[in-house]
Amino acid sequence: MIDYTGSYTDQYQLSMALVYFRHGRAEKKAVFDYFFRKLPFNGGYAVFAGLGDLIDILETLQFDDKDISLLRKHGFPEDFLKYLKGFRFRGNLYSCREGDIVFPTMPVLQVEANLLEAQIIETLLLNILNFQTLIATKASRIRLIAGDRRLVDFGLRRAHGPGGYYASRAAVVGGFDATSNVRAGRDYDIPVSGTMAHSFIQSYDDELTAFRDFAREQPGNCVLLVDTYNTLETGIPNAIRVGREMQGRGEKLRGIRLDSGDLAYLAKEARKSLDEAGLEYVKIAASNQLDEDVIKSLNDQNAPIDIFGVGTSLVTGSPDAALDGIYKLSFAGGKPRIKLSESISKITLPHKKQVHRLKTNSDEWIGADAVSLENEKDFKNMHSPLEPGKSMCIESFRREALLEQMMKEGKRSTEKLSVQEISAYRQHRMNKLPLEYKRFVNPHIYKIGISDGLKRERDRLIDHYKKQ
Amino acid sequence: MIDYTGSYTDQYQLSMALVYFRHGRAEKKAVFDYFFRKLPFNGGYAVFAGLGDLIDILETLQFDDKDISLLRKHGFPEDFLKYLKGFRFRGNLYSCREGDIVFPTMPVLQVEANLLEAQIIETLLLNILNFQTLIATKASRIRLIAGDRRLVDFGLRRAHGPGGYYASRAAVVGGFDATSNVRAGRDYDIPVSGTMAHSFIQSYDDELTAFRDFAREQPGNCVLLVDTYNTLETGIPNAIRVGREMQGRGEKLRGIRLDSGDLAYLAKEARKSLDEAGLEYVKIAASNQLDEDVIKSLNDQNAPIDIFGVGTSLVTGSPDAALDGIYKLSFAGGKPRIKLSESISKITLPHKKQVHRLKTNSDEWIGADAVSLENEKDFKNMHSPLEPGKSMCIESFRREALLEQMMKEGKRSTEKLSVQEISAYRQHRMNKLPLEYKRFVNPHIYKIGISDGLKRERDRLIDHYKKQ
Repeated sequence: MIDYTGSYTDQYQLSMALVYFRHGRAEKKAVFDYFFRKLPFNGGYAVFAGLGDLIDILETLQFDDKDISLLRKHGFPEDFLKYLKGFRFRGNLYSCREGDIVFPTMPVLQVEANLLEAQIIETLLLNILNFQTLIATKASRIRLIAGDRRLVDFGLRRAHGPGGYYASRAAVVGGFDATSNVRAGRDYDIPVSGTMAHSFIQSYDDELTAFRDFAREQPGNCVLLVDTYNTLETGIPNAIRVGREMQGRGEKLRGIRLDSGDLAYLAKEARKSLDEAGLEYVKIAASNQLDEDVIKSLNDQNAPIDIFGVGTSLVTGSPDAALDGIYKLSFAGGKPRIKLSESISKITLPHKKQVHRLKTNSDEWIGADAVSLENEKDFKNMHSPLEPGKSMCIESFRREALLEQMMKEGKRSTEKLSVQEISAYRQHRMNKLPLEYKRFVNPHIYKIGISDGLKRERDRLIDHYKKQ
Repeated sequence: MIDYTGSYTDQYQLSMALVYFRHGRAEKKAVFDYFFRKLPFNGGYAVFAGLGDLIDILETLQFDDKDISLLRKHGFPEDFLKYLKGFRFRGNLYSCREGDIVFPTMPVLQVEANLLEAQIIETLLLNILNFQTLIATKASRIRLIAGDRRLVDFGLRRAHGPGGYYASRAAVVGGFDATSNVRAGRDYDIPVSGTMAHSFIQSYDDELTAFRDFAREQPGNCVLLVDTYNTLETGIPNAIRVGREMQGRGEKLRGIRLDSGDLAYLAKEARKSLDEAGLEYVKIAASNQLDEDVIKSLNDQNAPIDIFGVGTSLVTGSPDAALDGIYKLSFAGGKPRIKLSESISKITLPHKKQVHRLKTNSDEWIGADAVSLENEKDFKNMHSPLEPGKSMCIESFRREALLEQMMKEGKRSTEKLSVQEISAYRQHRMNKLPLEYKRFVNPHIYKIGISDGLKRERDRLIDHYKKQ
């Protein structure tokens, strides 16, 4: 849907690229790590999402004529513009699988490419992965609470412009069943859902006729919105009347939707009335400012709601609205690279790396991942990257390497997965994550450690730069 | 940048459209109001934005072949698909000017079109206006605090995917000077800005060589990032060294950028060192999780910062992340329409309307707008839409009608304005808004009232539906 070209970037990437180009540095091999520092929603985990889109975009990314004209106007020299015209992403990409459960500090993805290419794609990569990971994580939290009830994304109208397109995709990755967003449904082949708004009913002189017309045209997908005038006095009685008329024609009213008021109370009243009228099969859908907390409260009250429509809080990733993912250089020109900081949590991890999920012999996750140098196999301990002196022997655990090669020389090197396949993988991985990391209040902190070799290299580089 | 077609909508718009189509209701004339209920950021005003984009999109919106194929797959009948193939927005649009200062409850925009067209564009309209209005409002708050210091949007990497494109536009509408977002700069002709990231410096063996290479290639736009290793020990000294080398070549170092640590303290130290080195003209830029509150605190500490780069909080509209704008039917099939609710604040205003900004004879805003029936000229009072019995005589005030026709029969009917022109209008209007509505803590509440005639019509319709 989006016309991604080289200009989908920050200006400073191009300023830097010019210097790399002019000083013979553009084609030096570099490795950048994508990672984040803080879990969203004060939660215990995040769901990695956006990888499929990122690979699609990187495979075809180039500067178009408009981009080149703009850069010429900005004073970039012709030899550099000529170079940019030939720009393609020809690098390698190593990453966790999309839908995996990920944690702060660990490299979730690594780009290995020439310095100029890896630099120019930074903004695009962060823009895609930060947002989808945020939303997939939010969706997965709502899914945890909703159990097997149906979850539908209603958020496009409150989304950040076309960000809503990716929000709908990420919602399904995170566990939603369907979306109201027709475009996202079209392009990602995910189920779309939706029936009527208040305006439909208002446009008629009376609610009953509106319901009847709708039922006539949409007998297979008729969910009647019952709160335009008065939910209990007119909405539900009119819906029941139409539901029985449909019965008489051999059709089935699919549901009613509550969109205001006390949802728990109204759902109970509606269920009772529907059941009494022989419409036990009619589902109750609810919407209106829902999020995981409201749904939890509705559950606690045993509200008989079958379908939840979630909008704003889902697609904006409320209340966080951003994942703080960053992209840091860890290797360039044949040498490991580090960024120092007064805060130890902001010191980066040098070198190309691997992430190992630690498991028991019976394949249970122990709640810890170890980050090592790429080919470091025989390390015995993992060390806290934040607290000096804190370490743990991990020899007895099985290790699952999380970073797999996803692109080779600019081309996808693994099979492209559907959003449903990614969602199934997320479910599979979520099932492995112990409960204490899934709870919302003070979740257990998943440990990320660094291997013996990586610690040695990090400490060596810190010393090196501190001495300068 | 975005390929907007008819499928950029919620599924329910199409379900309703089918019923309208089949029951001879599609071409009935309808009026929908766009308004919001709650000001973002606990502030006292909002800046209306997104109109220019909305009009561009509505002028060309249609269903493409992929859309039609999808809808066929979803079971929509052929006669309806044929109708959708001919779909164009041919309606009228009445709106506040983009950049105007707007308030809850008042119709900010009205769509007058046939029912089917007005219904189908709802999602798109809300998606564009809600987000840009949120961001322009956020930007205007930051502008209020920043005074005449330079403000640059750095947010694309944390934006909601391609929502960042519109965030950059809305930031300029709200008062930002420039953006790092090259694509937004290209398409909206707004200034772009940016120099270097930590990775640039890390990719070299030493900071000084990195600075020197950059200065050589970008002598006119050289802002050196000084916190990669140690701001005070190496970053600022190296920047000064390069600044003096540039002086020797007759060039001028433009600035340094601080991106971590105690920005107030570091800015003061940097200013002192730069001044002592004869580099008084070198600007100090700051970034790192800035928002209006942090900038206010930096001001309070007299931090000598000339340029602020603001990212996440700007482009996500933190902490709100959404404006609750809605689109409600107020007239259809020759009759005024209303939506009832148990909460009086959620009862809609029927009829096509006009909004009057009340002013003194010396053209000063009094802090109140009156919403009237479209052609109601001679009303004397405005009434609180929320508190029955509360009213105010407004005969003595001048009235400025805010809603102007912006589209006629599907085509733009006013001149298309540049983002800079819209920003200038916002500044002009903000200057008129009294200070007490601009303060951040407990701002004064701007009054929105309804006219005698509108109140009469609203009350009549409430009675009518309550009796049913």
